[in-house]
Amino acid sequence: MTSIPSSNDIQLAHARILPHIHNTPVLTSQFINDLSGAHLFFKCENFQKTGSFKMRGASNAIFSLKPEQRLNGFATHSSGNHAQAVAYACKTAGVSAYIVMPQNAPKVKIDAVKNYGGEIVFCEPNETARQTACTKIIQETNALFIPPFDDLAIITGQATCAKELIESHEGLDYLLTPVGGGGLAAGTALSVKYFSPKTKVILGEPEIVNDTYLSLKAGKIIPVSQTHTMADGLKTTVGKLNFEIIQNHVKEVITVSEEEISRAMRLIWERMKIIVEPSCAVPFAALLGHKSLFKNKRVGIILTGGNVDLGNLPFG
Amino acid sequence: MTSIPSSNDIQLAHARILPHIHNTPVLTSQFINDLSGAHLFFKCENFQKTGSFKMRGASNAIFSLKPEQRLNGFATHSSGNHAQAVAYACKTAGVSAYIVMPQNAPKVKIDAVKNYGGEIVFCEPNETARQTACTKIIQETNALFIPPFDDLAIITGQATCAKELIESHEGLDYLLTPVGGGGLAAGTALSVKYFSPKTKVILGEPEIVNDTYLSLKAGKIIPVSQTHTMADGLKTTVGKLNFEIIQNHVKEVITVSEEEISRAMRLIWERMKIIVEPSCAVPFAALLGHKSLFKNKRVGIILTGGNVDLGNLPFG
Repeated sequence: MTSIPSSNDIQLAHARILPHIHNTPVLTSQFINDLSGAHLFFKCENFQKTGSFKMRGASNAIFSLKPEQRLNGFATHSSGNHAQAVAYACKTAGVSAYIVMPQNAPKVKIDAVKNYGGEIVFCEPNETARQTACTKIIQETNALFIPPFDDLAIITGQATCAKELIESHEGLDYLLTPVGGGGLAAGTALSVKYFSPKTKVILGEPEIVNDTYLSLKAGKIIPVSQTHTMADGLKTTVGKLNFEIIQNHVKEVITVSEEEISRAMRLIWERMKIIVEPSCAVPFAALLGHKSLFKNKRVGIILTGGNVDLGNLPFG
Repeated sequence: MTSIPSSNDIQLAHARILPHIHNTPVLTSQFINDLSGAHLFFKCENFQKTGSFKMRGASNAIFSLKPEQRLNGFATHSSGNHAQAVAYACKTAGVSAYIVMPQNAPKVKIDAVKNYGGEIVFCEPNETARQTACTKIIQETNALFIPPFDDLAIITGQATCAKELIESHEGLDYLLTPVGGGGLAAGTALSVKYFSPKTKVILGEPEIVNDTYLSLKAGKIIPVSQTHTMADGLKTTVGKLNFEIIQNHVKEVITVSEEEISRAMRLIWERMKIIVEPSCAVPFAALLGHKSLFKNKRVGIILTGGNVDLGNLPFG
C-alpha cells in the first residue's frame, strides 16, 4: 500500500495554501435542522475561490513545488471545477495553465477558465481523448501535469477543508462529502482520522454512477458504466490511491436518485439562499433519505461547489 | 412635517429586535470589485430570517407593543416579504397573523407564509381590494394593522440594517438601497444621517416604476402608473412619511432597465453564489450603469432579499 499523507503533511499543506484560499464560512439553517431532525453544519466551498474546493488541491500541488519547477506552467484535463482551480492557481503563481476540457463542459465553467487566463484545448468528451490531448500539450510545452484527483498533493490539499470544519465545529458525529474521483473523500477521511477520530465519514454518490458504492462491496475498483447524472462533478470512477484510503477509513456510501439530488439542491437554494451545484447537494440528499440514522446528531456537510449553468437548471 | 425617528429611537429598536433577527453577514467579491472599479460591501439581508430585511420592521412594530396589546394578533396586506415577516414575528410572539395576499403572489412566498403559521386571505391584485379585505379582517378579529412601509415603527426597524452595516464597515462613501414603498430607503437615510453623516445615500429604482425618481423632481408624490417590472418588491408608490424623509436626506435616485436588473442579478448569483431576488439587484444594477461615479469608492449595498420562485427565473 502507498504511504498515505500524515497529519503533519496536511498541516503543512494548510499553512502553504492559506494565502491562496478562503477559510470558508460554515452556515446553519433552523428550517433545515427542523426538517432533517439533525444539527447540520454546512461548510461552504461554493464560496471558495473559483467556486469550489478544488482550489485547495490545485494550490497545494502548484505551491508545494519550488518557483524554478513551475516555470513551464501546468496542464490538466477536467470537465470544470479542477480546470478553474488550476487556471486560477497558475495565475497567482504567474505561470501558464493549459486546460483540456470536453466540448460539452458547461459554458459557465469554460468562461471562468478563460477569465482566469487559462489556455483551453477542447477535446471529445471521453477519457481517452482527454488524456491524449493533455499528453500532447505536455510534450509541446514541458508543462507539469496536475492530476484532477488521484494524487497525494491533491488529496492533502482537499483534506484541509475537513480540517477547517473540524477546527471550527468540534464534536461532529458525522462528516459527509460527495464522492466522484475521491480526492475530497479521501482527504476528508484522513483529516477525520487525525483530527477528529470519533467522527464517522459517510459519502454520498449518485445511484446512476455508484462506482464507489459497488467498489467498496467488491473490495476492488468497479469502473463507472454510465454517467448521465445531473451531478456533473461526480461522473468519474474513483481513483486508485483514493480508493485505498476510502476502503480503510470510510464506513459507508449512501446512493441517491436524480430526483433526490434535485430536491435537496432546491431546498438549499430556497432555504439557505445560496447557490450550490448538483454534485454538491448529493450528501445532503443522502442525509434526507436516511433521517433516522442522523437523528439529533451533529453532522458536518461539505458543500463542494457553486458553479452552475443558470441557463440550464433542473427546476421545473 | 411629522417628527422623524431619532438616533435613540433607532438604537432602542435595534436592541428590541436583536433577539428576533440576524445581524446579517457582509460579503465582498474580488471579481465584482474588479468589474465595477469600486470596493463593494454587500449587506446580505437575503440571509435574514424569512429571507428579507422586512423582518426588521415587522419585529419592531410588533415587539414595541406591550404583550397585552398583542393579544388579538396582527393583520397586514402584502405581496410577499412583509407578509412572511409579519407571520414569522407573530409566531415568535405567540399570536395570530392575518395576511391579505394578492392571488398572483409568487408561490414560494405564499408557501412561506403558510409555513410560518400565517392565516392567508386572498384578494384581487389591486390596492383597493387589498385594503378592503384587510379592513374586514380587522373588524372581525380586532387584530392590529401592521403597515407594510409607511409607518414610523417600520421605518425605525428597517433603519437597523444600515446601522449594522455602518458599524461593521466604517468610512463608506455611498450606501445604496432599492426604493419601493420607501421604508428601507427612509430608514437607511436616517441611520446614515445619525451614524455616518459623510456617507451619501443613493436609491435604485426600476425605470418602469420610477415614481420616487419623478416625485423627487416634482417635489410631490407622483403615483406609479405601471407596475410590470420583474422587481416585484418595488411596485408600490413611495409612502408619504417615507417621501418626506427621502426628500430631506437622499441625494439621488438612479433608474435601471429590466435588462440591467436581470444582468446584475445574474452576476450576483454566478459570482457570489448567493440567491437574491430581482428587487434586490436594482441598486447594484444602478452602480454598474454609473461606474465613473463610484470609481475607487467604498460602497455599501443592501441586498434586500432572496425570496424567488425558482420555477420562474429571468435567465435564458
